[in-house]
Amino acid sequence: MSELALLAEKLDAADELAPLRSRFVLDDVVYLDGNSLGALPAQVPERVADVVRRQWGELRIRSWEESGWWTAPERIGDRIAPLVGAAPGQIVVGDSTSVNVFKALVAAVRMAGDSRDELLVDATTFPTDGYIAESAARLTGRTLRAVTPSEIPSALSGRTAAVLLNHVDYRTGRLHDLPALTAAVHACGALAVWDLCHSAGALPVGLDEHGVDLAVGCTYKYLNGGPGSPAYLYVRGELQPRFDSPLPGWNSHADPFGMSASYAPAPGALRGRVGTPDILSMLALEAALEVWEGVSVAAVRAKSLALTDFFLRCVSAYTEPGRVVSVTPEPHGERGSQIALRCPDAGEVMKRLIDRGVVGDFRHPDILRFGFTPLYVSFAETERAARVLGEVLA
Amino acid sequence: MSELALLAEKLDAADELAPLRSRFVLDDVVYLDGNSLGALPAQVPERVADVVRRQWGELRIRSWEESGWWTAPERIGDRIAPLVGAAPGQIVVGDSTSVNVFKALVAAVRMAGDSRDELLVDATTFPTDGYIAESAARLTGRTLRAVTPSEIPSALSGRTAAVLLNHVDYRTGRLHDLPALTAAVHACGALAVWDLCHSAGALPVGLDEHGVDLAVGCTYKYLNGGPGSPAYLYVRGELQPRFDSPLPGWNSHADPFGMSASYAPAPGALRGRVGTPDILSMLALEAALEVWEGVSVAAVRAKSLALTDFFLRCVSAYTEPGRVVSVTPEPHGERGSQIALRCPDAGEVMKRLIDRGVVGDFRHPDILRFGFTPLYVSFAETERAARVLGEVLA
Repeated sequence: MSELALLAEKLDAADELAPLRSRFVLDDVVYLDGNSLGALPAQVPERVADVVRRQWGELRIRSWEESGWWTAPERIGDRIAPLVGAAPGQIVVGDSTSVNVFKALVAAVRMAGDSRDELLVDATTFPTDGYIAESAARLTGRTLRAVTPSEIPSALSGRTAAVLLNHVDYRTGRLHDLPALTAAVHACGALAVWDLCHSAGALPVGLDEHGVDLAVGCTYKYLNGGPGSPAYLYVRGELQPRFDSPLPGWNSHADPFGMSASYAPAPGALRGRVGTPDILSMLALEAALEVWEGVSVAAVRAKSLALTDFFLRCVSAYTEPGRVVSVTPEPHGERGSQIALRCPDAGEVMKRLIDRGVVGDFRHPDILRFGFTPLYVSFAETERAARVLGEVLA
Repeated sequence: MSELALLAEKLDAADELAPLRSRFVLDDVVYLDGNSLGALPAQVPERVADVVRRQWGELRIRSWEESGWWTAPERIGDRIAPLVGAAPGQIVVGDSTSVNVFKALVAAVRMAGDSRDELLVDATTFPTDGYIAESAARLTGRTLRAVTPSEIPSALSGRTAAVLLNHVDYRTGRLHDLPALTAAVHACGALAVWDLCHSAGALPVGLDEHGVDLAVGCTYKYLNGGPGSPAYLYVRGELQPRFDSPLPGWNSHADPFGMSASYAPAPGALRGRVGTPDILSMLALEAALEVWEGVSVAAVRAKSLALTDFFLRCVSAYTEPGRVVSVTPEPHGERGSQIALRCPDAGEVMKRLIDRGVVGDFRHPDILRFGFTPLYVSFAETERAARVLGEVLA
């Protein structure tokens, strides 16, 4: 056994999160794609079967009340809240990330007032955020400008209504400075909207602590909610009375069963709801979130950094210098929970890795992306992934 | 056995759709709430279990391709198409009805052009349609006017951009004249947008035949897709190139994995997609749609009318005259697949009916609503429901 393999054994033995792995359904594949689709939490199949067979099949319509279907969006929001540093009553689950970006941006522009006519968007964000920001700008008569996160401070002005930023760059894994950027946005009087898709569940976010105004995120990556599971929307408590949704569906009405022809928004986080919640997916997510019981996000972050440090160390030991180049920042404060390696033949290399039981993903045109989910990835797997990568690259 | 009970037996014996009941999980409750949440189709539990355990749990990320997850929205749209009279390639599944109403209305207003500054909405429609229409009008700088369907012809003018109508009134069960109203809307040069929530799966719609421009509908009523299952959007083929979505998410991009910073819409129905599809709910719906194999919508409509006729006959036989008054139109051409009875103490009466195993629903302030799903409701159940209602009302 190599020195690094021995070290991996020691690190696993000392890992206080190691027992959490048993909360997931896993096999001998090294799964480093939890930043795209989280693995299946063990209790989900049985829970979903109960939702289908008993709640839908037997109770049918009664389940809206008796099985707590109606209140699921805000109840599950409160379950996500501690993972992103939010007090209860500020997060609602439902719709896709894209739809929530739209709600957040239009609402933010409206809160900023008519004198602020520019929307800034992170030029490095996942494309959908930019497309939706463009639509929000067009429909609200604002101008959209795409700038990199480092350019944000100098791009801010009295014209800025809101800024949409991604917490972690989906390609490079770079972690942006949420506290400093939020403070800069606030200093110019604008609203800060954060996309947490690649950070929630992998590192502390601190939404309340840093005064973030609005935030969105998906639940199928580090939150393991299942394929296309519903996204969430955070609206800071004090802003909720001014949250004016562009999608005022009946589920966000103050009295949804009053069936009034005129709209009156519900108080609180419920104001972010739209239509009838997607119950099967939503309750699968609720079950999935139980894996977080007793887990500290700080411990998750510590293990995430240890895993990515160790992976980089193993990659440099097992791979000819220069064959791949990490585009993920070295400093811990600038790193999310993934390692992205630039490699000219990345598409072909990833296929061969997958054939050999190491699953990451390929991002066009030349990025090998490896996501590290601290809840279930071990140091031994990390060493194995780097070793197989070295063999494939050789 | 009463004369009506004997007649029910005869009608059931002659009912060619009677064997379809075995395709659902049912018990001895008379379930007349399928117009709110359809019953569980028998093959859904096993299918969902496979999606969770094998597709998600074992194949994980590979399922986006290998299990057909990525193409589910348009594949399932094509499965719904024949039920609403649409050729393939025009329907996409995803998001809630409210979100789809928003896409359809903003896109319709854009197609109508800047010279048309008014949006008409069915004043009797389900409230969410009106709320969303108001938002669409506000964001596109149009005026919204709510008028009843019978007032639509005289309300149309050269100012009208689009008209949003509900095919069946959710309270009264009145079926509106889709062919005539669509023709009137077209005669004035506007676009017709229909909400099919209470008609699809219960009666022929004929979207293509009648030249409907855009349509939306839910899938959890007569399509039995499960609680909050994803809705669908129809965009008539020839309009698709001009469909300019207000929610241009990455899933509707011409090259979604190209990760381009600029948006270029996909051709065809895919243009109506937004974010990552909600796979568990979507594939439950796909399994649910299999109950339609070999079923003719015309036969479903014939049985629906026979059931509602028979229910009205039984109610009048078993109930003191004047105790309840049907607000559902008598003429077949004006009736959906439900009977709504006005009754001063409707809330209390419905509770007692449910206690006695007859499930309908109460609509504020005084409506008892009974939905008839021809795929699984029998004439014997219909007679029993009316008999129990008569006993409760006495």
